[in-house]
Amino acid sequence: MIDLRSDTVTRPSDAMREAARDAEVGDDVHRDDPTVAELEARAADLLGKEAALYVPSGTMGNQIAVRVHADRGEELICERECHVYKWELGGVAQLSGVQPRPVDGGERGALTPGQIEAAYVEASSHRPGTGLVALENTHNSKGGVALAPEVLDAAAGAAHDLGVPLHLDGARVANAAVSRGVPLDRMVREVDSVMMCLSKGLGAPVGSVLAGDAEFVERARRVRKLLGGGMRQAGVIAAPGLLALENVDRLAEDHENARVLAEGLSDLSGLVVQEPETNIVLVETEGPASAFLDRIGEAGVAGSEFGEHTVRFVTHWDVSRDDVEAAVERVAEAR
Amino acid sequence: MIDLRSDTVTRPSDAMREAARDAEVGDDVHRDDPTVAELEARAADLLGKEAALYVPSGTMGNQIAVRVHADRGEELICERECHVYKWELGGVAQLSGVQPRPVDGGERGALTPGQIEAAYVEASSHRPGTGLVALENTHNSKGGVALAPEVLDAAAGAAHDLGVPLHLDGARVANAAVSRGVPLDRMVREVDSVMMCLSKGLGAPVGSVLAGDAEFVERARRVRKLLGGGMRQAGVIAAPGLLALENVDRLAEDHENARVLAEGLSDLSGLVVQEPETNIVLVETEGPASAFLDRIGEAGVAGSEFGEHTVRFVTHWDVSRDDVEAAVERVAEAR
Amino acid sequence: MIDLRSDTVTRPSDAMREAARDAEVGDDVHRDDPTVAELEARAADLLGKEAALYVPSGTMGNQIAVRVHADRGEELICERECHVYKWELGGVAQLSGVQPRPVDGGERGALTPGQIEAAYVEASSHRPGTGLVALENTHNSKGGVALAPEVLDAAAGAAHDLGVPLHLDGARVANAAVSRGVPLDRMVREVDSVMMCLSKGLGAPVGSVLAGDAEFVERARRVRKLLGGGMRQAGVIAAPGLLALENVDRLAEDHENARVLAEGLSDLSGLVVQEPETNIVLVETEGPASAFLDRIGEAGVAGSEFGEHTVRFVTHWDVSRDDVEAAVERVAEAR
Amino acid sequence: MIDLRSDTVTRPSDAMREAARDAEVGDDVHRDDPTVAELEARAADLLGKEAALYVPSGTMGNQIAVRVHADRGEELICERECHVYKWELGGVAQLSGVQPRPVDGGERGALTPGQIEAAYVEASSHRPGTGLVALENTHNSKGGVALAPEVLDAAAGAAHDLGVPLHLDGARVANAAVSRGVPLDRMVREVDSVMMCLSKGLGAPVGSVLAGDAEFVERARRVRKLLGGGMRQAGVIAAPGLLALENVDRLAEDHENARVLAEGLSDLSGLVVQEPETNIVLVETEGPASAFLDRIGEAGVAGSEFGEHTVRFVTHWDVSRDDVEAAVERVAEAR
Repeated sequence: MIDLRSDTVTRPSDAMREAARDAEVGDDVHRDDPTVAELEARAADLLGKEAALYVPSGTMGNQIAVRVHADRGEELICERECHVYKWELGGVAQLSGVQPRPVDGGERGALTPGQIEAAYVEASSHRPGTGLVALENTHNSKGGVALAPEVLDAAAGAAHDLGVPLHLDGARVANAAVSRGVPLDRMVREVDSVMMCLSKGLGAPVGSVLAGDAEFVERARRVRKLLGGGMRQAGVIAAPGLLALENVDRLAEDHENARVLAEGLSDLSGLVVQEPETNIVLVETEGPASAFLDRIGEAGVAGSEFGEHTVRFVTHWDVSRDDVEAAVERVAEAR
Repeated sequence: MIDLRSDTVTRPSDAMREAARDAEVGDDVHRDDPTVAELEARAADLLGKEAALYVPSGTMGNQIAVRVHADRGEELICERECHVYKWELGGVAQLSGVQPRPVDGGERGALTPGQIEAAYVEASSHRPGTGLVALENTHNSKGGVALAPEVLDAAAGAAHDLGVPLHLDGARVANAAVSRGVPLDRMVREVDSVMMCLSKGLGAPVGSVLAGDAEFVERARRVRKLLGGGMRQAGVIAAPGLLALENVDRLAEDHENARVLAEGLSDLSGLVVQEPETNIVLVETEGPASAFLDRIGEAGVAGSEFGEHTVRFVTHWDVSRDDVEAAVERVAEAR
Repeated sequence: MIDLRSDTVTRPSDAMREAARDAEVGDDVHRDDPTVAELEARAADLLGKEAALYVPSGTMGNQIAVRVHADRGEELICERECHVYKWELGGVAQLSGVQPRPVDGGERGALTPGQIEAAYVEASSHRPGTGLVALENTHNSKGGVALAPEVLDAAAGAAHDLGVPLHLDGARVANAAVSRGVPLDRMVREVDSVMMCLSKGLGAPVGSVLAGDAEFVERARRVRKLLGGGMRQAGVIAAPGLLALENVDRLAEDHENARVLAEGLSDLSGLVVQEPETNIVLVETEGPASAFLDRIGEAGVAGSEFGEHTVRFVTHWDVSRDDVEAAVERVAEAR
Repeated sequence: MIDLRSDTVTRPSDAMREAARDAEVGDDVHRDDPTVAELEARAADLLGKEAALYVPSGTMGNQIAVRVHADRGEELICERECHVYKWELGGVAQLSGVQPRPVDGGERGALTPGQIEAAYVEASSHRPGTGLVALENTHNSKGGVALAPEVLDAAAGAAHDLGVPLHLDGARVANAAVSRGVPLDRMVREVDSVMMCLSKGLGAPVGSVLAGDAEFVERARRVRKLLGGGMRQAGVIAAPGLLALENVDRLAEDHENARVLAEGLSDLSGLVVQEPETNIVLVETEGPASAFLDRIGEAGVAGSEFGEHTVRFVTHWDVSRDDVEAAVERVAEAR
């Protein structure tokens, strides 16, 4: 099976496995784990922020950020297809009492300064007021489009002018940085906090990092404890995470493979293929997506259903150029 | 001052004041207040529901409905300018942990069956699932437009087909019924619960009713206690509320006055007036709404700011035809 | 029926009914109701606080205070039989995410400085920290015992030394002040906020006041809106509330009646009667309290079940000396 | 440094490190990780429950259990020094809206059937009602006392008679089982759910398991996602967890070492030592615990402050008999 369901399926490399075995560890709840400390320091450095926190999942990183930035009853301006609103079980409302104000970000899932200003609500006796703006880059539901750093700068600027912080769901921000040809710290320069997953294209088995200024991270650490994200000898998984941080440039291969996949699939009748910017390829199918996935599944290609007539393929570390070419052939036969 | 800020400013009639004085009362938390019981029974009857509950405000009625219908973490499909989402301090998220999914209802603030189906989310391991659909009739932010009963029927049908209840924020549902020429029970026939304010055009000093089936109202009574809405000798305010229920037909006068007001204002240059369907008149101003309101305020007319260039006027029981005509004249001079 | 279930059953006097009829009113959500404003000003003055807020129930007043004083996840130190912990549907946790730390206040339901210090929790990475101390005076579940002002002073002093505010659930604080022979403002001098019910012994039909400093009350006003406690022409019920404020001294009669009732009942075999300090008389019954209540109910006396073998009687404005004496006779025959 | 602060500081064995390196893994959010699946199956089997769920921490396991068992606004009966109430940042109230009703469990931290019956609250219009009883075995704050299985049976029986489930915080339930000489499944036979830590005496680097019936675990899985506990290739840490499950019998050594430590320390003047039942030794110090810890810290022994005059030592896998004997000597010199 050529597994293109998600880049979350990547399995750790041998080097990562060795690193897990050999990690120097301690009790991270007591802040005694040197490997976790090193991961947090290097992630903070890479992202150009004062500090970072290792968390077991991207969802936890996002939910912590919402809770630290926004008071209960405040509003979250976000793109209406974004992960934090759509795929996190309503945690924004459930865990933080924060009311989302989703805005349509169009084909690229970006929010313009004008949209942020229009969605902004001033606190009053009847209205909660805006507490946070969140963006997502790359934007998963929009097909992995990579927003330029200037787009983030502008959004953050608009938010800051209103006195509101901006959080970036950067589950795949490394893909965005590579696609845009800028370093990570440049990409997230103006945002107040950023969550980046180590367990997607970067290949680590478990975990994400949440970065921001020192006070933010200190408060985030306490919310992590509340949510049950405090782990003991987490160096075992932080060690592969450290290696994952070195995989940023490697993502260019996934992007190239996505391009090859998209070109191959676009030659097939009955499929409309969105041109990929990173490692995600969205395909519109004539018939139902589920039936299409069943057929190609039997032929040895796995994707995921993204809509009634939409299928998502994701390239990643465990998928080679040959795999991608084989996948095109199998889809061609099976579709 | 001719006060057109809102129909919430209506003052109780002499008959209502007498009724407050003479009310037979008891401790309603012990369910011993016969006047409250009578109000609840008559409101239920008028709305064609099994039972009703007297609550101190429309906001409380709506928030109780959300909490009873939807479990924490479920989604509320609602119109994006509706009161429960926009003007209730994020209570949906804060008090119930419910995540709103606002949908653009266009000029009339209605949600079509297609929109409800499109916004519906099936519960999954990543998604909370839809717990409730809410509509508002008349729709305040859209200028008091009165949805036809068939529009509610269709929306409720779509919701029910998905296994989801529908709550109607009927703060001004009596205006809608009068405007549409149907009885209240016909208007709300297919909705699962309805909140109607007694303290707007119907003229009562305090309170709203929340109606639905007996089990819903029993659960609502407990949430009312939780929120602090259990009142003692509430018959003092329920008695004017009973008289308010007899004021439904009288709303036609307010609607006619709104029409007169709108026609008068539309003759004035620099104002664009939305044709009213009920007792709300929205006016677009050339300059800033706040400055316009200041000028007409000095001339003795009060409205409320509804947007940077939008002013809302509301006709009501304390405003006569003469008042409305005088208001036009004053605006004409002052604008 | 001589109704001794609670002082919440008092019905408004003719003067109160007249006041309701004649009240000057406006829309209090717009802060236009002069009667509510007067009630709030006079209540603040009487309680010696900067400001006060009119709320529809004591439960709402308490819940607002918890929410304004304590952040989510902080702890509330309270007596384990107190109303805010025991009888408010878990609102402390449900509405505010605050964790109660109940402390046994013994026969008088007081918390000593030592108990407050012992229950105090410093915020840490594992512990939420104490956000509020709450006391209740008179203490309902302990039989209406009236704590001396020095007891409140000492508790408030201990709380303040720890940097924690103290809220007084003063549903019956007027009874306490009368019993202790001190003015209300002296009684609550050191507490940060106090809720006092107008609808118990003071005889108003509806409502309570929540008093504190101006900033506290401003924040409380917003939470009241959130909970649905914003009412329109609330002057109709605030006007009797104003008269209720003049009823403080009258409570001495209720206390005297309670003393007479207790003495009468203590002569009866099979009953153990707690000596009353205010208007509440607790009686231990040999057999089940429910059966006892059924028997005396048939004889025309109503009390309430307070435990398997405990019955509570409450004297109030609607119960005269003759009523109390008759009640003793009826119980004597029926028990 | 001989680190006796906690058994959470244990570092993974070489075998565990190898297992981490060699684990067969997949994306556990997609339920594709065979090692996690095996861990969950074996943990369920060991604990005699239908199913189990791997979670990143004991705190998350407990918080999930509270949320799945108890509805918002219900009460949790628990021992007043238990972890879920005392050390989890008020998560019970913050995350689940559940109100704790702590009960004093005395020296052993147990709740008797009589205490559970007395603390039980029936749901009413004023009271939330009891939703869950929680016990802790071994009880950390009470010095690791090991409750007999019959004590759990009796508590669970009392809870079930009231229609309430019982959750066991079994962070160290394996220590309890070994101390009591019964298998784990016998120990937890009557409880509805149990959380057991793999990362304490059992020696795994990260994680706990939460076991119960299949429906409970299915719901728990969803709450885990909500809290951000869904991890990807978690087999890397589940593999050492599987080895940890084989370490149950080994805990007897820790218990024996704790006995040796306690005997040694009790010979020293100025210390009052509680006789240990498992791997925790509580010591009362004459002077302040913090000063005592500073002195012995300089001598190379680490413990943790458990009260102003109380120090806790915990034996574990990384501490040998020789270490314990050396610790006694160092304390003897330094105290």
